[in-house]
Amino acid sequence: MNDDLLFIDDDEEDVVEDLGTWKILIVDDEPEVHAITKLALNDFFLNGKTLEFISAYSGDEAKRCFREHDDIAVVLLDVVMESDDAGLLVAEYVRNELDNHFTRIILRTGQPGQAPEKDVIINYDINDYKSKTELTAQKLFTVIIAALRSYRDIIVIEESRAGLEKIIDASVDLFSSSSLEKFMQGIIQQLASILGCSKDAAYITTAVAATPDASPNPTNALDLNELYVFAGNGEYSDKEGVLLKDAVSPEEYELCKRAMRDREIVYAEDHVVAYCNSKTQNGALLYLSGLPRRIGENDKHLVRRFSNSVQLAFDNVLKTIDVESTQREIIERLGKAMEHDGQGSNHIARMSAMAEVMGCGIGMNENDVRLLKHAIPLHDVGNSRVPVTILRKTEPLTEDEIFAIRQHAEFGYQILKDSSRPTIQLAATLARQHHERWDGKGYPEGLQGQAILLQSRIATLLDVFDALINTRPYKTAWPLDKVEKVINEEKGRHFDPLLVDYLLNHIEKFMAIQHQHPDIPEYV
Amino acid sequence: MNDDLLFIDDDEEDVVEDLGTWKILIVDDEPEVHAITKLALNDFFLNGKTLEFISAYSGDEAKRCFREHDDIAVVLLDVVMESDDAGLLVAEYVRNELDNHFTRIILRTGQPGQAPEKDVIINYDINDYKSKTELTAQKLFTVIIAALRSYRDIIVIEESRAGLEKIIDASVDLFSSSSLEKFMQGIIQQLASILGCSKDAAYITTAVAATPDASPNPTNALDLNELYVFAGNGEYSDKEGVLLKDAVSPEEYELCKRAMRDREIVYAEDHVVAYCNSKTQNGALLYLSGLPRRIGENDKHLVRRFSNSVQLAFDNVLKTIDVESTQREIIERLGKAMEHDGQGSNHIARMSAMAEVMGCGIGMNENDVRLLKHAIPLHDVGNSRVPVTILRKTEPLTEDEIFAIRQHAEFGYQILKDSSRPTIQLAATLARQHHERWDGKGYPEGLQGQAILLQSRIATLLDVFDALINTRPYKTAWPLDKVEKVINEEKGRHFDPLLVDYLLNHIEKFMAIQHQHPDIPEYV
Repeated sequence: MNDDLLFIDDDEEDVVEDLGTWKILIVDDEPEVHAITKLALNDFFLNGKTLEFISAYSGDEAKRCFREHDDIAVVLLDVVMESDDAGLLVAEYVRNELDNHFTRIILRTGQPGQAPEKDVIINYDINDYKSKTELTAQKLFTVIIAALRSYRDIIVIEESRAGLEKIIDASVDLFSSSSLEKFMQGIIQQLASILGCSKDAAYITTAVAATPDASPNPTNALDLNELYVFAGNGEYSDKEGVLLKDAVSPEEYELCKRAMRDREIVYAEDHVVAYCNSKTQNGALLYLSGLPRRIGENDKHLVRRFSNSVQLAFDNVLKTIDVESTQREIIERLGKAMEHDGQGSNHIARMSAMAEVMGCGIGMNENDVRLLKHAIPLHDVGNSRVPVTILRKTEPLTEDEIFAIRQHAEFGYQILKDSSRPTIQLAATLARQHHERWDGKGYPEGLQGQAILLQSRIATLLDVFDALINTRPYKTAWPLDKVEKVINEEKGRHFDPLLVDYLLNHIEKFMAIQHQHPDIPEYV
Repeated sequence: MNDDLLFIDDDEEDVVEDLGTWKILIVDDEPEVHAITKLALNDFFLNGKTLEFISAYSGDEAKRCFREHDDIAVVLLDVVMESDDAGLLVAEYVRNELDNHFTRIILRTGQPGQAPEKDVIINYDINDYKSKTELTAQKLFTVIIAALRSYRDIIVIEESRAGLEKIIDASVDLFSSSSLEKFMQGIIQQLASILGCSKDAAYITTAVAATPDASPNPTNALDLNELYVFAGNGEYSDKEGVLLKDAVSPEEYELCKRAMRDREIVYAEDHVVAYCNSKTQNGALLYLSGLPRRIGENDKHLVRRFSNSVQLAFDNVLKTIDVESTQREIIERLGKAMEHDGQGSNHIARMSAMAEVMGCGIGMNENDVRLLKHAIPLHDVGNSRVPVTILRKTEPLTEDEIFAIRQHAEFGYQILKDSSRPTIQLAATLARQHHERWDGKGYPEGLQGQAILLQSRIATLLDVFDALINTRPYKTAWPLDKVEKVINEEKGRHFDPLLVDYLLNHIEKFMAIQHQHPDIPEYV
């Protein structure tokens, strides 16, 4: 046995890297044991980390060490010290009081035959026990290697657990930027731990700032100034939002440049920088540090997988957000055009917001409120088939013109009817019924009271309220007290009395919406 | 030391559960060693699993056992058998030939002083070595416990890795049902392994079949007949799509009922059934089996997290899909109404599909094609401000009427202009330019050649082609040869010559779209 071999690491190379230390706590009341142990384990390292020794000479001192260090990898624990079971009390304290299930415990007993009870081994999760006569360098080496590997694996599992928790949390709402961040944090945390890297990892992208609707700019493909840390773990968790060049060292920055330029995965020294493929952006980077020198094919496969997929996921989420916003704007523009309200009108925005307040206020469930909010902007699309000249007429209407205007309810229904989508079904009904009256004197069907859908009654009331309080082509804006008076007079006649009560009792909420979305002067 | 204590498990209870076995391979050329080992470890169990012994009496036999079993947890490996290093050759074979890095290897040597070289311990990832004189029950117990725990942790990490790979893969396209499945598989695989459960786990839901737009039906909240296995791991990976009641035993089905009814997490015997909270559905279930009897607070926390979040994530994805489809249908209905095309016309659908074919065909990039496809349906929204009587007129138009019709290009532009969204910006340009001509004789601006946006030139050509090949209020459908002749005559006059070439050279692609989206007879 050659003691020089003590510092062989997993990679069969004897270069010590500076990837930190494994903390080893030596607990023994004989100072000599400390000295021998340190001597035997001098120059030891595993996975690029050396050992850092902490010494305690009694059970109490050992407990203090555990309180002060939450990252002790292995404790070599004497059993008999200030009392016959002082060591066992330390083990119990670590597992049950401190709830530390990570540190590997190796018991050392004075007498070879003095084995601990099996239930001690089981319950305190003791990794091994040795008699002090087994304190040879070789034995110690073997037991520490095995214990550190166990410790390392337990930490990987804990990191995986923490990462999984983030992924689960984030999955609730991937369409918010903060959730995307958490999702990425969870994935890189798991990735780093499973690859055996340090915790210090980052995902670097431009994606969130840019809109995926825009084409990537090929002439600008290498502008690293647009890259910043989107999600970070370990050292990089404080650097989210920081520009890449300010987050890493100049040498690392060069690696990033290279990965970006060559669109490849760069394995270098103890870290990896992986270019992440993007369809619409200029790509992103995965940065992992503390990479074990010998990275396996399995691990490389996982990095490739990440590199191929993750930015595409990102792109997709951004695209989805963008598609939804674009569609919403189109609907709003077409809706306005079809109402012939003029582009400066905010009638639709106010109707949506007021419907939400009233729906919640009268106790509709969340889903019904959502449906109403999205259906109500469409109530007047039938106006598109009524000549604008009639809609904008300021003089009294002829009977033919009144007939033509009343047609808009049926036209709207025709445009929207027979859909399988609940929002559009509701919109069709609102279009048809929003000129019905509580007393049955409305049109087109003369429905009465609860024969009119609740949502339609809401639309009717809010539509009239909004028309009265604002300027229309045929009238000026009325003062609030006059509006309240008229609405109140129509309670039980034009309008559902309960809805009138809610409106008038919470008028400040509705006026707040009026002030948030005023009409703007026509620019045409 | 009391041998009765040998079968104490982690839970301080001495009931053996039937959760399977740990496979232990004993390799030794002395039959007596096999007998003593089995005797010493008789009645041992850990985490509810007993030991299953496999015996090999030579190195060659040991290698065969490893080829036949890929789930050997621990091998007790004699070093000197048919040769002095037969055992070491087995270790080398396992790690390097079979690429098995999971099985824990414990070397046993005949002589106490005969320690293996340290590089052997490192390179073959040897967990421990013992002299045969250390074959006491107590020593064996300790070393097997430690080795099994290591093995268990390594397997957890492997499962986490596999789960992470699924999560990464699935994240690319969460809006497809198959990706959602894979995402869930990845999460439950990680969850099961981290909790120390067996691989057999399932996520059970109704969500995908139903549409989230619909309100949950409270009277129907307990209809378990609608629940089926959505994503499964282990035993349940073959049961995806199977009804819950056909996938589990009657006892387990009762547990599921209880969890669903009480909307809670049920911990029972060796499995857990967790109700998963949903806003819009009736909830879902997480089913994990092979649960360790003593489940920690950390683990319960993770299950609660899953239970609170995951179905909401599901709901959100479904809602997003639904919102997008609903918005698309609204845009289509309003677009048709504004074109005054009649609800039976499929002009818009054909224009979108043809624009995609032509965009790809002439080499536009993917993003530009997508924009064009979504913008082109809006090119005629300006028609909404042109009297229908004029649009539908079958007799020749007066000059005033021609002027009125030509206004629709500018009207459309007014409706769509000044948006920050690229799709709408493009649509505004298409609305304004789709009656310009290659020779400059079009309207409203009389632009010529490449001064007209490429996308507008595409819209112009496809719009005319579609009008010619189909029936319109003012004309019957023309036969293809007549259409081709006219289009060809207008090459370089009305139309961009290159686009005409593409259309006529690939006419079968465009006719296929015509056949896929025919106009349907008006129902009004």
